[in-house]
Amino acid sequence: MSLVECIPNFSEGRDSAVIQAIADAIASAGVHLLDVSSDADHNRTVITFAGEPDVVAEGAFRGVRAAAERINLAVHSGVHPRIGAADVVPFVPLRGVSMQVCAELAQATGARIAADLNLPVFLYEAAAKQPGRTNLANIRRGGYERLQARMQSDPAMQPDYGPATLGPAGAVVVGAREPLVAYNAYLDTDDVSIAKAIAKAVRASSGGLPFLKAIGLLVDGRAQVSMNVIDFRQISLHTVTEAVRAEATKHGTTVTRTELIGLVPQQALIDAAIESLALPANVRDLILEQRVGAATGNFQTIPFE
Amino acid sequence: MSLVECIPNFSEGRDSAVIQAIADAIASAGVHLLDVSSDADHNRTVITFAGEPDVVAEGAFRGVRAAAERINLAVHSGVHPRIGAADVVPFVPLRGVSMQVCAELAQATGARIAADLNLPVFLYEAAAKQPGRTNLANIRRGGYERLQARMQSDPAMQPDYGPATLGPAGAVVVGAREPLVAYNAYLDTDDVSIAKAIAKAVRASSGGLPFLKAIGLLVDGRAQVSMNVIDFRQISLHTVTEAVRAEATKHGTTVTRTELIGLVPQQALIDAAIESLALPANVRDLILEQRVGAATGNFQTIPFE
Repeated sequence: MSLVECIPNFSEGRDSAVIQAIADAIASAGVHLLDVSSDADHNRTVITFAGEPDVVAEGAFRGVRAAAERINLAVHSGVHPRIGAADVVPFVPLRGVSMQVCAELAQATGARIAADLNLPVFLYEAAAKQPGRTNLANIRRGGYERLQARMQSDPAMQPDYGPATLGPAGAVVVGAREPLVAYNAYLDTDDVSIAKAIAKAVRASSGGLPFLKAIGLLVDGRAQVSMNVIDFRQISLHTVTEAVRAEATKHGTTVTRTELIGLVPQQALIDAAIESLALPANVRDLILEQRVGAATGNFQTIPFE
Repeated sequence: MSLVECIPNFSEGRDSAVIQAIADAIASAGVHLLDVSSDADHNRTVITFAGEPDVVAEGAFRGVRAAAERINLAVHSGVHPRIGAADVVPFVPLRGVSMQVCAELAQATGARIAADLNLPVFLYEAAAKQPGRTNLANIRRGGYERLQARMQSDPAMQPDYGPATLGPAGAVVVGAREPLVAYNAYLDTDDVSIAKAIAKAVRASSGGLPFLKAIGLLVDGRAQVSMNVIDFRQISLHTVTEAVRAEATKHGTTVTRTELIGLVPQQALIDAAIESLALPANVRDLILEQRVGAATGNFQTIPFE
């Protein structure tokens, strides 16, 4: 059985009726609905589902349609950057399927969204057809509010599919990527400038840690370093957390708590434990459940080979 | 399918032919052999296997018999306390089986070892029939060298089964317990007195952390705090490690690395990551692989309910 994961982000984190309608639309395609995580401050919901490639593509389309019918970006507020009702729709290969297959799935789904829903669609990361679009931040810069002007003035900002005009549902970014970990650290301060300074110090784009994206936000009245670990196999959550803690100390504050958005690959937690405990890397192969499962044949891991 | 784990410790960690013969004897019963971990300094091998209760009991008996035929405690040296060729044989309930079933399995296996191999057998932890034997350390104190004298002079040290006389294969401690984590921390010193002082400071028996046993040893020329985390659900590897690190600092040294002996339950690593990263406990329920497995039905965890 081949298995694709899809983790669309929707620009609604407060109205439970809207969130439920989107989740129901996705589930109606026959996917395995794995998680629905809403955040009121971000005003954003991350839905995680998985299944066979075609079923997952159908679920993604239905979720985007349900969101586009119900969410009006013109009256949307929230601290997280976003350009659409269905803001970003990534496909991730889990088992028995290549990144190329996921990229083609993203392209086909994007074309269908543009054709059937008349929305501008941008392809990103492994599904990108234009080099500047491998990075989501380039597409989303300035948010919904600036996107119409950017599409009109910047030839490089023409959508891959659909019209270059923006309605209340905004635009959709569709793509394929490796599994990422969405990870936020809360600081013991309400000074968002400290979160922004820490984000700048630790993120890859400004010379910090590789495979790390970070921005500073004010969430729940606390400064938050909001991060995406793009490849948890290359840089552990332990390394990320220690870097944020060290920067926080420089600014006279501390990390009070952290959180994950959506689901986390088990290996990301196990690797963090190995590093923080100073265990050897071969501990990955010394896990009782995995040995029992391999021996008895009734336990199957998702290896992210 | 009910599943019992057995993790016998044998007093041979150097002679690979002997170790192989014991592992082969265990495997011949039809168990799932999960791991063989040998340590030359400890001169000790931990074998992990699992299967249906009766099959596991047969494997344990065959392993004890193979060890008793090949290992002579009278000429054995090693830094770890031990009283027998097959030193300790714990049964652990994994799935669909109670602790009581494991205790009865231990008692039946102990009785058979005494009857067929003519060895003194002590029952411990959940299988203990005498109150002083819930703690393994009470039985093993003084090691093989002192056991004959203790059995002769102390009415409380009569074996549960078998003769009160010691041959070259020594005695066997058989029991049932919860899964434990065997975890060692190496210090940046060759002063074993520091490891002993740290062990005393952190272990439960002298007022340290609950559910933690610890002794100080000299291994590979380095001082080592050798620990058993008796219930990793009550005290995390992160807490244990931070406690050892804090004590090491007091003694002017550091923890250079740690190691696990045998296999580790996945939850012990995940809990360590949650604590060290300051994540909320509900992250245990946000693990992608477990959600996918539960949804698709082709992944089965060992919950240690």
